[in-house]
Amino acid sequence: MERIHVTYAFSGENPKVIADLIRIEQTIEFPFELAPSWIQDQVVGKVEEITSIDKKNHLITISYNSDIAGGELTQLLNVLWGNASLFPGVKIVDLKLPDSILNNFKGPRFGIIGLRKIFKADTRPLIATAIKPMGSDAKTLAEIARTLALAGFDLIKDDHSLANQPWATWKDRVTLISAAVKEANEITGGNSAYVPSLNMPFDLVIDAAHTAKDFGAGALLVIPGITGFDSLRVIAEDDTLALPILGHPAMLGSLVTSKDSGISHGIVFGTLMRLAGADISIFPNIGGRFPFTTEQCLEIADLSRKKLGSLKPMTIAPAGGMTLERIPEMIDMYGKDAALLIGGALSRGNLADNAARMCDMVRSY
Amino acid sequence: MERIHVTYAFSGENPKVIADLIRIEQTIEFPFELAPSWIQDQVVGKVEEITSIDKKNHLITISYNSDIAGGELTQLLNVLWGNASLFPGVKIVDLKLPDSILNNFKGPRFGIIGLRKIFKADTRPLIATAIKPMGSDAKTLAEIARTLALAGFDLIKDDHSLANQPWATWKDRVTLISAAVKEANEITGGNSAYVPSLNMPFDLVIDAAHTAKDFGAGALLVIPGITGFDSLRVIAEDDTLALPILGHPAMLGSLVTSKDSGISHGIVFGTLMRLAGADISIFPNIGGRFPFTTEQCLEIADLSRKKLGSLKPMTIAPAGGMTLERIPEMIDMYGKDAALLIGGALSRGNLADNAARMCDMVRSY
Repeated sequence: MERIHVTYAFSGENPKVIADLIRIEQTIEFPFELAPSWIQDQVVGKVEEITSIDKKNHLITISYNSDIAGGELTQLLNVLWGNASLFPGVKIVDLKLPDSILNNFKGPRFGIIGLRKIFKADTRPLIATAIKPMGSDAKTLAEIARTLALAGFDLIKDDHSLANQPWATWKDRVTLISAAVKEANEITGGNSAYVPSLNMPFDLVIDAAHTAKDFGAGALLVIPGITGFDSLRVIAEDDTLALPILGHPAMLGSLVTSKDSGISHGIVFGTLMRLAGADISIFPNIGGRFPFTTEQCLEIADLSRKKLGSLKPMTIAPAGGMTLERIPEMIDMYGKDAALLIGGALSRGNLADNAARMCDMVRSY
Repeated sequence: MERIHVTYAFSGENPKVIADLIRIEQTIEFPFELAPSWIQDQVVGKVEEITSIDKKNHLITISYNSDIAGGELTQLLNVLWGNASLFPGVKIVDLKLPDSILNNFKGPRFGIIGLRKIFKADTRPLIATAIKPMGSDAKTLAEIARTLALAGFDLIKDDHSLANQPWATWKDRVTLISAAVKEANEITGGNSAYVPSLNMPFDLVIDAAHTAKDFGAGALLVIPGITGFDSLRVIAEDDTLALPILGHPAMLGSLVTSKDSGISHGIVFGTLMRLAGADISIFPNIGGRFPFTTEQCLEIADLSRKKLGSLKPMTIAPAGGMTLERIPEMIDMYGKDAALLIGGALSRGNLADNAARMCDMVRSY
């Protein structure tokens, strides 16, 4: 297979009409009959199959010449969903990428196996949390991080809402927390990674990633819904950084929440995150603050792990309002190739005790 | 008013519950009762008003401390829509930004009046088109651009799907088209601007903008749905570029197409584009290839022009399948402070004749 195959679910009548609109809209955006015949044949998408489930629900598969993506993630996204995003009732539910596309991407630098080595976690799930709440000063956040690192967390990430607020500027926060986690690691002999957020101005992201590494950050958090999937790719592929990358779902909700438009959960939080190079994809688990379904969550897990060219499998981090009590159920659902991310719940009662309990629960499960 | 006011339409029951979820989710993402009281009071959003239209439709206004945006567009987007995007049934329908936020942004460098000066268009609409179709080689695209520039178009933009494809690489295309438009300008004495696309890898965008200017580009096209709204801001604010910026709607459809979730058309294509610094916001007009409604289009026009701190009004470019016959109607609908953008339809018959006819129609209306 040398072509990109995209399957769109279409809610409406006359699927042939929308199929023709999409295959042209996503390529030449030009009256088909006026295009030179070789462009009609080789550049415009081809309708491969239309399957009608009932009169108002159809599956349309269109294939595209992989050359139209020009080897770039930005244009691949444009081909998949650029102007098609403006058609209501259209949702991407399946995506098959040929090697000619996949070979342009390195995917996760570490992936599941690489992260296991970094965190000396041969078989267990990774143990992750977030530093909160916004409004705390940098010193307070650093003390929270120290407590979590002393307890043995693998990944201690910035709450995704921490940016460059006056209460704790990015630089102060990253400096103090990196130092606190480093000191804790020296005490424990462990390897907790502080994960600062790179949700920041476009022209500062790359420099900030390097600054964070210099300060001692052990991994980096990117929000592709805000800074773009390609910002994640660039940070992930940077050999002078070579740090694990966590992808956060903020603002990507609009791609997935509508039942009949957008892109499937698995493709957004699985395929696209992995293609861009996330080592860990964070998404809202069932039964938390967001109404993702079991099927949607398992699709994310599946597409994070199943064969995708030679790209490494990606670790998933089901999150969004999880509690200690749910750890066994989460491991049963997702297996051990996951990072269990519990944030605010650790602060109910004594943080150090809860943190120790979470680490014990995961390590001993 | 010193706080950010966001009004969410909520489709569902118990608006008080979702209002409390949102005001916490968008700020501290932490159990409210566990946060220090000053953080509860000053950092967490405040529910200002809940208006119930009926049992299942409500308007919720929440205000946020403007400090939580930290002076950055990336975090402002996160506050407005980051994790809230993951709640179904929630749509931002109104946004009021205080001066403490607006003062961080320069907005359009040229805006309506500035563009009128550049294009010597004292009162008429601007005349815009796109170079198509993908698959054509750079020389062919340059000849098309030359024809359009000789006819007197103000703005000749890359089709948004033109990236770095083998048929016409970005560099070849931008070199040849810039030269062709320059030569045409020397013949006509006019000032047609070639508008290359900056939909490209994250780490290449800024350099490419400068390269494009060096080659002779007269304006720049950014796709914030792919490279991020903040990429547009950085390019727009760059005083060493100082070129008009066009914002394209690709991939932003997922923010607006759902009736009951996302962000209103006017806020996305009006307020956010303008805040980021677009001089021209392109969006699908009624009666074209995309089903935007009159109300949605007029909301975009309204928010592009109405007072927004000291930010200049932004030119709108209704587009997406327009034809010459619709020019009078478009001017009647939007007034003359618009750029009329007609692409593929100019190729039905003789391009030069159609291009001349469009320029005549607009100039003489």
